[in-house]
Amino acid sequence: MEELIKPLQDLVDRFRSLDGVGKKSALRMAFSVLDMSEEDAVSFAQSILDAKTKIGLCKCCQNISSEEICPICASSSRDHSLVCVVEDYQSVMALEKVREFNGVYHVLHGTISPMKGIGPDKLKIKELLERINEGGISEVIVATNPTVEGEATAMYISRLLKPLGVRVTRIANGLPVGADLEFADEVTLFRAIQGRHDI
Amino acid sequence: MEELIKPLQDLVDRFRSLDGVGKKSALRMAFSVLDMSEEDAVSFAQSILDAKTKIGLCKCCQNISSEEICPICASSSRDHSLVCVVEDYQSVMALEKVREFNGVYHVLHGTISPMKGIGPDKLKIKELLERINEGGISEVIVATNPTVEGEATAMYISRLLKPLGVRVTRIANGLPVGADLEFADEVTLFRAIQGRHDI
Repeated sequence: MEELIKPLQDLVDRFRSLDGVGKKSALRMAFSVLDMSEEDAVSFAQSILDAKTKIGLCKCCQNISSEEICPICASSSRDHSLVCVVEDYQSVMALEKVREFNGVYHVLHGTISPMKGIGPDKLKIKELLERINEGGISEVIVATNPTVEGEATAMYISRLLKPLGVRVTRIANGLPVGADLEFADEVTLFRAIQGRHDI
Repeated sequence: MEELIKPLQDLVDRFRSLDGVGKKSALRMAFSVLDMSEEDAVSFAQSILDAKTKIGLCKCCQNISSEEICPICASSSRDHSLVCVVEDYQSVMALEKVREFNGVYHVLHGTISPMKGIGPDKLKIKELLERINEGGISEVIVATNPTVEGEATAMYISRLLKPLGVRVTRIANGLPVGADLEFADEVTLFRAIQGRHDI
């Protein structure tokens, strides 16, 4: 009886299919479910279904939202002429935490990656062009991650948007605050020197 | 909009309630659910409910089981006179992996822990006594973990069973194979010396 009993194995397999969950964690989680009260298990199952059915994409910025227009896009106190283009919802959360950016977002849901077979048509780039064509946008900050795919996507978007007469900017590269030059990689250091400014 | 949208927050909270899941992991898992197909999400929810409803305890050894009598207790090729008492299902799995133990198990579902308010009555000790009183058991190996609670539980069980004329043994303490004396803790080293044998 080395293998698990079927209902438990099924649940472990489900947990393992989640991002970043290994064999041992999945088993521990499955045991947590067994230790739950009947009610909690039912609520847990329901919350999975709710997340799938109640969450859609904001019609404007394509961010995940439980409403047709997300609270950021619906807010009148935000600058709707400034659009920050990001890869995913996690990036929106990270930027919102800073409490410095008062514009709106546009979520691409990924990056261009020929290796993974993700072309520009699979991202929400068409929707971004539509937003710009509707007018009222003066600057687009491309805040995709500074990875190979993120940079390529930023370049692609910048070439696409510049002919439309909109200002396209890219977030800065450089040393993170609190870092040590000794341990910085060469590309970051090179970018930090390139991006130097008067003090 | 720093906080999450409600259906997502609900799901994150559910994941966080699982053993060993932190804030970031819970969020990553919740996003995995959003990325799932509708079908997969339904199956996931169903597998949680199935695990709760289809898994009960084996009437004999108290191990979790989807049948009334678990495959180990039902097996005729195993030695039913030798019972190994363990804390939980995970211990059963660990011992089964060794493929050396051919007896049967008895799962306590915890250890005696006055700190956590767990007395002997909350463990499956009564059921163990019943099994022994039914006869046919010659040896009970107490294989609770070598922790303070595990040792205390082992002592308690040993005192309870010895008057019944059954042989009670405890798994050995000592250095794990491949370990280095330099890094062994004193208690383990002391036990290893105490438990020395002729070669």
